[in-house]
Parts: sequence; structure tokens; C-alpha cells
Amino acid sequence: MEFTLSRLAELTQTEPKGDKQTMLRNVATLKDAMAGDISFVSNPKYKRQLETTKASVVILSAQLAENYDGNALIAKDPYLTFAKVVRLFNPPKKPAASIHPSAVIDKLAVLGKSVNIAANVVIEKGVNIKDGVQIGAGSYIGENSNIDQDTLLYANVTLYSDSQVGKNTIIHSGVVIGADGFGFVLQEDKSWYKILQVGNVVIGDDVEIGANTTIDRAALGSTNIANGVKIDNQVIIGHNVKIDENTIMPGGSLVAGSTNIGKRCQIGGGVAIAGHLEIADDVMITGRSMVTNSLKTAGVYSSGITTEENTKWRRNAARFRSLDKMAKQLNQLEKKLQDKENTDGE
Amino acid sequence: MEFTLSRLAELTQTEPKGDKQTMLRNVATLKDAMAGDISFVSNPKYKRQLETTKASVVILSAQLAENYDGNALIAKDPYLTFAKVVRLFNPPKKPAASIHPSAVIDKLAVLGKSVNIAANVVIEKGVNIKDGVQIGAGSYIGENSNIDQDTLLYANVTLYSDSQVGKNTIIHSGVVIGADGFGFVLQEDKSWYKILQVGNVVIGDDVEIGANTTIDRAALGSTNIANGVKIDNQVIIGHNVKIDENTIMPGGSLVAGSTNIGKRCQIGGGVAIAGHLEIADDVMITGRSMVTNSLKTAGVYSSGITTEENTKWRRNAARFRSLDKMAKQLNQLEKKLQDKENTDGE
Amino acid sequence: MEFTLSRLAELTQTEPKGDKQTMLRNVATLKDAMAGDISFVSNPKYKRQLETTKASVVILSAQLAENYDGNALIAKDPYLTFAKVVRLFNPPKKPAASIHPSAVIDKLAVLGKSVNIAANVVIEKGVNIKDGVQIGAGSYIGENSNIDQDTLLYANVTLYSDSQVGKNTIIHSGVVIGADGFGFVLQEDKSWYKILQVGNVVIGDDVEIGANTTIDRAALGSTNIANGVKIDNQVIIGHNVKIDENTIMPGGSLVAGSTNIGKRCQIGGGVAIAGHLEIADDVMITGRSMVTNSLKTAGVYSSGITTEENTKWRRNAARFRSLDKMAKQLNQLEKKLQDKENTDGE
Repeated sequence: MEFTLSRLAELTQTEPKGDKQTMLRNVATLKDAMAGDISFVSNPKYKRQLETTKASVVILSAQLAENYDGNALIAKDPYLTFAKVVRLFNPPKKPAASIHPSAVIDKLAVLGKSVNIAANVVIEKGVNIKDGVQIGAGSYIGENSNIDQDTLLYANVTLYSDSQVGKNTIIHSGVVIGADGFGFVLQEDKSWYKILQVGNVVIGDDVEIGANTTIDRAALGSTNIANGVKIDNQVIIGHNVKIDENTIMPGGSLVAGSTNIGKRCQIGGGVAIAGHLEIADDVMITGRSMVTNSLKTAGVYSSGITTEENTKWRRNAARFRSLDKMAKQLNQLEKKLQDKENTDGE
Repeated sequence: MEFTLSRLAELTQTEPKGDKQTMLRNVATLKDAMAGDISFVSNPKYKRQLETTKASVVILSAQLAENYDGNALIAKDPYLTFAKVVRLFNPPKKPAASIHPSAVIDKLAVLGKSVNIAANVVIEKGVNIKDGVQIGAGSYIGENSNIDQDTLLYANVTLYSDSQVGKNTIIHSGVVIGADGFGFVLQEDKSWYKILQVGNVVIGDDVEIGANTTIDRAALGSTNIANGVKIDNQVIIGHNVKIDENTIMPGGSLVAGSTNIGKRCQIGGGVAIAGHLEIADDVMITGRSMVTNSLKTAGVYSSGITTEENTKWRRNAARFRSLDKMAKQLNQLEKKLQDKENTDGE
Repeated sequence: MEFTLSRLAELTQTEPKGDKQTMLRNVATLKDAMAGDISFVSNPKYKRQLETTKASVVILSAQLAENYDGNALIAKDPYLTFAKVVRLFNPPKKPAASIHPSAVIDKLAVLGKSVNIAANVVIEKGVNIKDGVQIGAGSYIGENSNIDQDTLLYANVTLYSDSQVGKNTIIHSGVVIGADGFGFVLQEDKSWYKILQVGNVVIGDDVEIGANTTIDRAALGSTNIANGVKIDNQVIIGHNVKIDENTIMPGGSLVAGSTNIGKRCQIGGGVAIAGHLEIADDVMITGRSMVTNSLKTAGVYSSGITTEENTKWRRNAARFRSLDKMAKQLNQLEKKLQDKENTDGE
């Protein structure tokens, strides 16, 4: 694909600056860009690289463009415009509709039009695959699951029975949807009695689920992932969790059973959220936090201790174990000094 | 399935209260229950919902039943009774014995009676599959592995060679049993020399292993998961770890190599346990703890800092780095005040 | 396999001590060893077991050998010698070259000599598999990926399109290479716009990647894993991360997008490293640390709080939330005492 600067401006509804006939063939970072590439600055941290970049055009805010002599595409949100430009240079290559002969499809499954079912896919009875769905090689779709229009499953995805997946959703390799929630009752002999997990998982439209993430089926009812939710790799979603619209969860997060997470939350990577909690709409939680109480109002929340040189850390971490003692000692000292002052002042 | 209240009482050896002919058709939470459903209260936190539930029958302790006017099933352990009732309404649907024609089974593998081998399963030579075993689509069973009676592997499970799995065990999708432990020796040129991992993994009876969990083979000898152990999703078990009977490990836990965990332990979600440690029987570790020393006596152990509002956290976390200095400052101050008192008192 | 002590000494360039004709048939730990076994002591912690071991020969440092009466193999680095001896007793069993008839290989893929392609493997067009490569059952190799000589993929590995894998590399089951990085731009309506991830993953020679680990493709350019890097199970490597030669990362670690990690680093298990950071060469980070700033010089770094008895922890963790207040209180007290002294001294 190639575009002139003016054509890109037209397609992204932005303002061209400089030589509007500049021909662009590829997208690159400021640092790696060569002639013919379009790049962008969104984080002012990378502003410096503007001086040395070889990009033929850079996507910039009006403010940054003022001091830039080269060709530019002036955008209200340079990062979003960049994302749109990447798509223009990489138009979707949807494979032709086809069902690979090695796929094992139960005769009681229903397939829509223009579906693409790759090699070694297994589809069980009662499954309903809507138009335009793509299922990657080796994926398994359990009984009575539904996958709505234009959803894409990459290779080696596993859907247990009764899973519901919405439209335009992307599920990456290694994802397991609908495995049993972790529910056991302790018996008198100290062994565990399994609570059958008879619910399911319901995933909305425009969701993305990263590689090797697991979302467990509900004990009763449904585990719910609402429209527009974006989940990264190796995230753990327990049974009966509900995650509301447009919430985003980077890699390695963990949400224990029956917790509800609101709309538009931004959870950091590696965050662990205990079970049976309520997280309000618009909550942001910084990476690696440990959440053991409900967060009932919007805001930014954090926990954890950041890295320091090991010998210093050892000393500080050792003192943590006496923190309560220190606090008491401090209060006593304060009181003593106060008493003394009172006495002295008599 | 449907049952009268009196029939359920009979089957679960509990006490019916109210209209014993009430017909029950399904199990539901107090909140979601409709007429014809049976529900339960185990956590007193949900007691309030008793007032508004539409459930036809509720499983209750004798104490809670006293103040409840509706139909009830009075149980010593309502949660366990609920788990039993769920099973009554959802009897096992064991698939008919069959071997899918697409399964690739080595002629030197031995299969028992009534096994169910799904599409695209691969079974290598020397494997021994006992009666009643079910293996889900796309699963791989490496050379010389054994799977004992009535064990269930869901789709896309991987067993490396020499793995031993007991009876009535459940292994969820994406689980990898028997991959190499992480063992390398640093060489003079700063590259790493791989220590061949020539041991295996031995898993007992009545074990459950959650989706995408990994259990590494031993360097020498065996990694051992004893009878009745329940492991959740995305747990990491290193080489030569031993986990004793009826211990339970929720999602995202990590046990580094050669650590031994005792019987009946309850490890929280996201706990990390360092290598070469001993964890005694009946140890409980709360979620997200970091265990770097052996825990030699039964009890409850914890670590970690819970979430607070970000600006407060920043201030507190910054002070953590001066904790040792604060402790010294505090001690000096105390000493100074003491000295002063002594001087004043002279 | 069997070897005399003198033969093993010859093969490993070490010094035999005692009966040089001792016949050895197996390798075992000191504790499990029986007659005919060779064992080793590397960690002095296990020195005690020398007194009771039944091993016929023990690999020891010259220092430990001095006080040991039994047969020994005296080595400069007993652990490395042990690793070499394990290989001698377990010579590689490379399967015969073969392509299983159930494998689905695009006619536009190129396969080298002596490759082993197992059952149900799927290889897409444009793929280039070099001589001696082994690909385990059910693995998927996406379009235009290359796998260099003698590399081994175990069963159920997924390589997305355009992945590059070097020579003599080992990739364990469940690994996903090249899934989309986690990149989205927030739109005005609070939904997320996906940034197409059009880069790839490049993995060097002599790398090992543990079970269920995920390495995301770059947004633009490449995610890079250099020669000699060893990555354990369930590690999360974000897009555009670069990990330099001979760095080692045990299980459960997480590296967020665009972070660069230097050469010869030793990252502990469960460490989380935020995005866009620089980690210098020769950095060691202890297990479960949380890294939110660049670590610009070699050294050992740590964070986190270790486990203590729950009731003590509750008290200390509660005080953490007042740490800033405590520090201020302490400073005021110090000042007050100082003022007082000054006054008293007037």
C-alpha cells in the first residue's frame, strides 16, 4: 500500500503540513523510520527523536508541529491517528471462506455463511457458529457453545460447553473459556467435595482476550465479560466474576470468584483482586497491586513496594516486621515528652 | 430432573421443613432463584437475601431455619448439602465409550475398557490408559505415561513422557504435565548449561488440576502431587516439588523447585513460595503472600500490602525506603529522652 | 548405560578418587541413591547427607573430598560435572526423521532434511523449517515463520505468522509466540481502538522457553529474545521487549511492553517489570520483586514483604498505611526534643 500525505490526511480527517505529495509506504517508530515511512509522537518523552528521525512524515499534535520543520500530519489525538494509519497500511486479509477437510464438525452443529474453519478444529453438537467467524487450527468448541458474527479465534483455543461469545471478538491462542470454577467444600475427613460448576461464560461484542488467559464458568449462572472489554495474556478470571464495559486488564492479572468490576476500569498488569468484592466504575489500579477490599469510588489505587538495592531492602523489610512496635514506641515517646513538658511547665 | 423436598431430604440425609411435597426443578443462588428452585445460605453475609428470595426451598442451618418461614432443608453443613443437591440435579453425563477415528494411537499403547478418546488425540507408545478414562480432543499423551481408572482429561491437555496420573482425577484444558524443570548451570563464559530433567511427574487419585497450570518433571526422581490435592488455574509447580494430601491451591500460585508442602494446607491465590522450603501440615497462607522461609508449624501466614488511594500510597511507599533509618532515629530519640530523664533526676 | 569411575573421570575431565573400577549405572540424589548410583554435592547445605548416602560415587569439590572416605569424582564445579554426567547416562534419543501423515503442511512451506513433524501439526504457507527440526503433535506454525536447525518444539506449541526461531532452541508445550501485543487507544466514547500489531517475534539460538509462556509480537518492529536466554514456565513477555544474551527468567515473571533487559541478568520467579524501562547488564532481581524504575547499574535488587504470622502481619500492614504520618511525627518529636535541649541549655 502507498498513500500521499494529502490522501492520508483525507482518510484520517487530519491536517497535512509540508509537501502534501510525499509518498508514504510504511509505518515505523521515529527511531527506526526510513525515507517513505510515516511515524508519530504521542508521548512527549520521545520528542527529542524528532530531531534525528528519517521519517518522511510524522503525526503530531498542533503544538508539537509548530516547532517541527518536516512534513507532518496534525492530529487532535496523534496516537489514535497513528492507530488508524497502521490499519490503512495493513488492510485486513480475511481468508477466503473454507472448511478444512480435517476439521471434525458434529452434524448437529450449525455453521453460518463465509466461515473459515482451519485444520483439526473440533466442533461439538449443538454449537452455533455465525457468519464470518474464523476458527484457528486445533481449536475446540464444546457442546452448545455459540460464536457470533465475525469473531476470530486463533489456533489452539478451547471453549468448554455452553460458552457464549459475541460479535467481532478476538480470542488468542491457548485461551481456555469455561473450565470449572474452583469450588470445593471441606468435608469432615479433611478431603474436598467438588461443587459441580453448572453455569457458563458469556462474552460480549468487541472483546479481546490475550493468549493463555483463562475464564472459568460460573458455579451457577454466568461469568460475564461485557462489550468492549480488553484482556491481555495469562489473566485469570474466576467463576461468577462480572467485568463491565470497556474495562481493560493487562497481563498477569487475577480476579477471584464473584467479584464485580465496573465500567471503564483500567487495571494494571499483575494486579490481584480477591473474591466477592465490588470495584466501582472508572477505577484505575496501578500494576501489581493487591486488592482485598471493595473500591467503591472512582479513583486511582495502588499498593506494593518497589525495588531497591538488595542490602537496603533487607534492612527495611526486616523493620517492617516491627512496624507496629515502632508505632507504639513512637506514641509512648510522644506522650512521655508531652508529660514532661506539662511537668516542667508546672 | 425434579425432586420433592422430602425426596431431597432423604437423598441428602437432612431434615425437611414446610411443605414436603414442594416440587424442585433447579438450583439457583438466593438472588436469582425463581419458583421451583432450591437455594442455600452458607455465608451469613447473604442472610438478608432470605427475606426477598423467590426460591421454593432454601438449605439452611438449624439456627437460620428457626427464623425462616419458607420451606427449608435443614442441614448440618448447608454448603456441603448444596454441593450434593447440585449433583442430584446434574447427574454425570459420561459419554459412551468410543475412540474417534481421527485419534492417533500408537500400536504399543494399551487402552482399557470403556474409554472415550476424542478427536485428534495423540497417544504415544508404551502408554497405559485404564478403564473408564476420558481424553478430550487434541490432547497429547507422551510415551510411557499411565492414566488410571475414570480419570478425565479435557481438550488440549499435554502430558510429557513418563507421567503418572491416578484415579478419578480431573485435568483441565491447557494443562502441561511433565515439561522440563528449570535447571541450568552457569558456565565460565556466562552461558547456561542445561541439566537434563530425567525425572517425571506423579499425580495421585481424586486430584483436580485447573486450566493452563504447569507441573514440571523432576530433575531426578519425581515431582509429586498426592491424593485429593486441588489445584486451580495457571498455577506453576516447579521440579521436585511435593504437595501432600488434600492441600488446595487457588489460581496463580507458584511453588519453586524442591519445596515440600504438607497435608491439608490452604494456599491463597497468587501466593509465591520460594524453592527448597518446607511448609508444615495445616498451614494456611493468605492470598498474594510471598514465602521465602520454611513455615514449620501449622497456622495462618500472610504478607503483602493492600491497596490504598494512590497519592497516600506514594507517600507511604516512599517512606518504606527509610524504614530502617526511621527505626534507628526512633531508638536514638528514646535513648536521648531516657538519658535526659536520668540527668534531670540526678 | 554404564561407566566405570575412571571412564567417567576421563569423559568429564575430572579426578577419580577411590576404587576406579567402580561400575556406575545411574544418577541419583544423595538421599535416594543406591549401590551403582553416582550422586553429587554442590550446595554445602546437603553435606550432612554424605555420611549416610548409599551412592557408590559422589561428585565433590576437592575441599569436600578431603574428608570423604568413599569413592569420589573430584571436580572444579561439581554441579556442572553432575549436569554432564546426567547427559552421559541419558544420551539424546532423537527420533527418526519422519512426517506424520496426519500433519497438514501447506505446499508453499519448505522443510529441510531430517525433520520430524508429529501428528496433527499444521504448517502454513511460506514457512521455512530447517534441517533437524522437531515439531511436536498438535503444534501450529503460522505463515512465513522460520525455524532454524535442530530446534525442538514440544506438543501443542503455537507460533503466529512471521515468527523467527533460531538454532538449537527448545520451546515447551503450550507456549504462544507472536500473539498480538496489548495496544489500544482510548476513544472519546471511552471504548478502545485496537492498534494493529504488525511486528513480529525474533528468538535467537540456544534459547529455552518454558511451558505456557507467551511472547507477544511487536506493534512495529520486533520483540527480541537473544541467544542463550532461558525463560521458564508461564512467563509473560510484552510487545517490543528486548532480552539480551544469557539472561535467565524463572517462572511467572512478567515484562511489560518496550522494556529492554541486558545481558546475563538473573531475574527471580514472579518478578514484574513495568514497561518502557531499561535494565542494565548483570542485574540480579530477587523473586517476586516489583520493578517500576529503570535499573541502570549491575547489582542485586529486591522488593516485597515476606510472610509472617497472620495476626502480626495485620498489625504491621495496618501501620504501613500511616507510615508517612509516623515519619512526620518522628521528625517533629526530634525537633521538639532538640528545641527543648537548646532552651534548657540557654
